[in-house]
Amino acid sequence: MIHNQPPQASIKRMSVYLRHLNHLLSKNVKCVSSAEIATALDLNAAQVRKDLTYLGELGTRGVGYHVKKLRDSIIKLLGLKTIRKIGIIGAAGHLGGALARYPGFEKHNFKVVALFDTQNIGQEVPNVGIIEHIDQINKIVAEREIDIIVLCVPTNVVQEVFNKVQDSGVKAVLNFAPIKLISNKDIHVQNVDFTSELETLSFKLRTINPE
Amino acid sequence: MIHNQPPQASIKRMSVYLRHLNHLLSKNVKCVSSAEIATALDLNAAQVRKDLTYLGELGTRGVGYHVKKLRDSIIKLLGLKTIRKIGIIGAAGHLGGALARYPGFEKHNFKVVALFDTQNIGQEVPNVGIIEHIDQINKIVAEREIDIIVLCVPTNVVQEVFNKVQDSGVKAVLNFAPIKLISNKDIHVQNVDFTSELETLSFKLRTINPE
Repeated sequence: MIHNQPPQASIKRMSVYLRHLNHLLSKNVKCVSSAEIATALDLNAAQVRKDLTYLGELGTRGVGYHVKKLRDSIIKLLGLKTIRKIGIIGAAGHLGGALARYPGFEKHNFKVVALFDTQNIGQEVPNVGIIEHIDQINKIVAEREIDIIVLCVPTNVVQEVFNKVQDSGVKAVLNFAPIKLISNKDIHVQNVDFTSELETLSFKLRTINPE
Repeated sequence: MIHNQPPQASIKRMSVYLRHLNHLLSKNVKCVSSAEIATALDLNAAQVRKDLTYLGELGTRGVGYHVKKLRDSIIKLLGLKTIRKIGIIGAAGHLGGALARYPGFEKHNFKVVALFDTQNIGQEVPNVGIIEHIDQINKIVAEREIDIIVLCVPTNVVQEVFNKVQDSGVKAVLNFAPIKLISNKDIHVQNVDFTSELETLSFKLRTINPE
């Protein structure tokens, strides 16, 4: 049972807790305290305790949290009890192709069920499927019940492609192009901008060696 | 001149401003107000004005900012007046290979100068270089003055590889593995975790269609 909506920052940390709990489970650890989680992840213990309250009454004073129960609660909170179906647009490109072959999706309860592009139509990605034309998106989204579209297309066409995605009825998009997408519908967009992360590193280097 | 250190969130937004200003320059826009920037990027105008004060006295009341001067100030703040040299570890893998071929680095003042792996040694990535063994990292980092190492290696080996990177003297790392790296030196680490972004999307979908 969810008591109230956690803020975005807590949701981000839930992902981090989930990885750590999976790691503990792989080592057969049964119980963990919020202090131990905080230390392992270099977070504030009070913050960890506060985040975990969004999952309900799971901890026992002096004993801590049952690792598997806590893990399962986070999976439920994140809506990952059933597998989320992903379509990748730009699957013929380098980044899209790399993501299509990424072996970690299934471990995290995601599954790539469609590959789109405007070129290399019919080309197969082993164990995933064939590349289909983006003009088929409305039909394929409906048939395969796609939850999330991953956009791996060049910056100069991403808005145009995003407009097609909005029309397809998909409600969630992960965008790798370093541009803010203009949305006119009720659609969730998250951005992965590794150039921005590189720029942050460059700034930090500058504070070591000022120009 | 930098008046004081901007916080991390402002630095992230500087990357976003930089993309927008480059876009404006490509359309020959000469002047822009903080309100116009805020509207285009869906940010708070007061926040934008506050961020830009970290760049010094650049705006003119009633006129706004000179686009090119503002862009150049951000490039300077981010330490990107000279090109930052990048080495990619895991260049024989799908993600590392995709990043090695990513055409956007140079546009953002980054350049890939070294490719490392433990396999496919000697294989060439056109216009970038050949894959070299990670055992050569200390020598190559020093010779080619590498600023930033990008880690595209599997989660189960990333800490071990990161330890070698720390020993090489590099001061900045971009990590794509969904794990918190344990650092014992003065080294900056930024993480790109697209699985976490997918999990955030899954959570948001769940609030539309609760299970």
